[in-house]
Amino acid sequence: VRAAYRHRVLYGDTDQMGVVYYANYLRFFEGARNEWIREMGIPYRQIEERGLMLPVYEAGLSYLKPARYDDLLEIPVLVTNTRVKIRFEYKVLIANSDSLLAVGHTVHVVVGKDGRPTRAPEWLMNALKGTENG
Amino acid sequence: VRAAYRHRVLYGDTDQMGVVYYANYLRFFEGARNEWIREMGIPYRQIEERGLMLPVYEAGLSYLKPARYDDLLEIPVLVTNTRVKIRFEYKVLIANSDSLLAVGHTVHVVVGKDGRPTRAPEWLMNALKGTENG
Amino acid sequence: VRAAYRHRVLYGDTDQMGVVYYANYLRFFEGARNEWIREMGIPYRQIEERGLMLPVYEAGLSYLKPARYDDLLEIPVLVTNTRVKIRFEYKVLIANSDSLLAVGHTVHVVVGKDGRPTRAPEWLMNALKGTENG
Amino acid sequence: VRAAYRHRVLYGDTDQMGVVYYANYLRFFEGARNEWIREMGIPYRQIEERGLMLPVYEAGLSYLKPARYDDLLEIPVLVTNTRVKIRFEYKVLIANSDSLLAVGHTVHVVVGKDGRPTRAPEWLMNALKGTENG
Repeated sequence: VRAAYRHRVLYGDTDQMGVVYYANYLRFFEGARNEWIREMGIPYRQIEERGLMLPVYEAGLSYLKPARYDDLLEIPVLVTNTRVKIRFEYKVLIANSDSLLAVGHTVHVVVGKDGRPTRAPEWLMNALKGTENG
Repeated sequence: VRAAYRHRVLYGDTDQMGVVYYANYLRFFEGARNEWIREMGIPYRQIEERGLMLPVYEAGLSYLKPARYDDLLEIPVLVTNTRVKIRFEYKVLIANSDSLLAVGHTVHVVVGKDGRPTRAPEWLMNALKGTENG
Repeated sequence: VRAAYRHRVLYGDTDQMGVVYYANYLRFFEGARNEWIREMGIPYRQIEERGLMLPVYEAGLSYLKPARYDDLLEIPVLVTNTRVKIRFEYKVLIANSDSLLAVGHTVHVVVGKDGRPTRAPEWLMNALKGTENG
Repeated sequence: VRAAYRHRVLYGDTDQMGVVYYANYLRFFEGARNEWIREMGIPYRQIEERGLMLPVYEAGLSYLKPARYDDLLEIPVLVTNTRVKIRFEYKVLIANSDSLLAVGHTVHVVVGKDGRPTRAPEWLMNALKGTENG
């Protein structure tokens, strides 16, 4: 079991309703996704250096309870993939609690240097043998 | 037919892939939603002053083609609602073209000063008689 | 006299203090700078296509009065330059008023494709014959 | 000597020049400032609960070398204060290195519940006995 990504909510993450602005959850998802990939042993930076990119194709979010300034968030990730798509599922929790604030997902395609979708090569498939983190 | 909200893509909207960062579409949606509400005759600021808020409950996005720096985007909005939920649907287009870059939606609940869901009052229902904008 | 750049404050620009988050003024400055450059006749996108970039070297801001959600801001720009540096000065006002909310500046260097500082070529110097906008 | 605040650069922090967008350094400064205040023993959230706010009055940044995607940044803070103003100075370094990417400062005023500047009370002065962190 890997440690889940954590983020301490900044003033700059909140809006005047006193809660985290809805777009910023996608930033937190990126942070969690990056760390998940890093712990696979292939930081995303290296995936790009090998000529592949994983642009996002679809995203979805459900906002259950507001996250607030100074909350310490924990974002476990679950990954599933086929040869051509990778799906990340995210939970946003208050750290060390069962308090679930939001859930979401992103779907990514594997794209080559020419910007066209491609099948994931063996090294990426091996790395993505996804197991739950958190 | 109302004029659709427009946004000129900033450097600050892009990421190192050279395209608009995926979270920023939710900002553009907010801009389009604000203008749509303003043109109903009741700016969102006034809805809040009357004691109601419309926090987001759900959001979804499909990224079809990348938006790039300096693109002039146009974001028409379509709204449907019940007494307790308001659904906004968005398209992101290159202005004055048929080039569709992304589609998405947000679902909002009507909440009173106590933070609890409530039924939309008559004045809000009247204002929300949604028709396509753009 | 050119029209000054305008920005309508979004929820996403504010923080839980109910005012615009301090970092976002630098976004507004970028918007104003982009439009100023566009109106020179050479959109920044084209400057980059000709092999030059104008990365920021220094920035400064004074926050005088808070900008709030739904405010319509107006950001006039004043530009001065030498062969190697370009200085933009910004004011942030409530549109159609004398209400001055913030002032700031950014200093940019002219950099070639190799990432090294270079002297501004004649076409850029001509374009930058800066006069006040707003 | 306290541990300095660290931030791993996200895609969402970068722009199409492939480097961290200039406004985002002010977010990093906020993160560093928050942690510095937390380690004083009075999280900023509690300062607000006691009826004081520390809005920013002035900010300045010098950009020396670009920060890039996936860089692990370290942001040590130095604080000085009078009864009415608090000045934070920041460095942005690549973690575990001498590579200095940016320096900056912010100046904050002490403001009461009525939004007016006030003198810092004894408990805040004691807490702010600033020493270098990092």
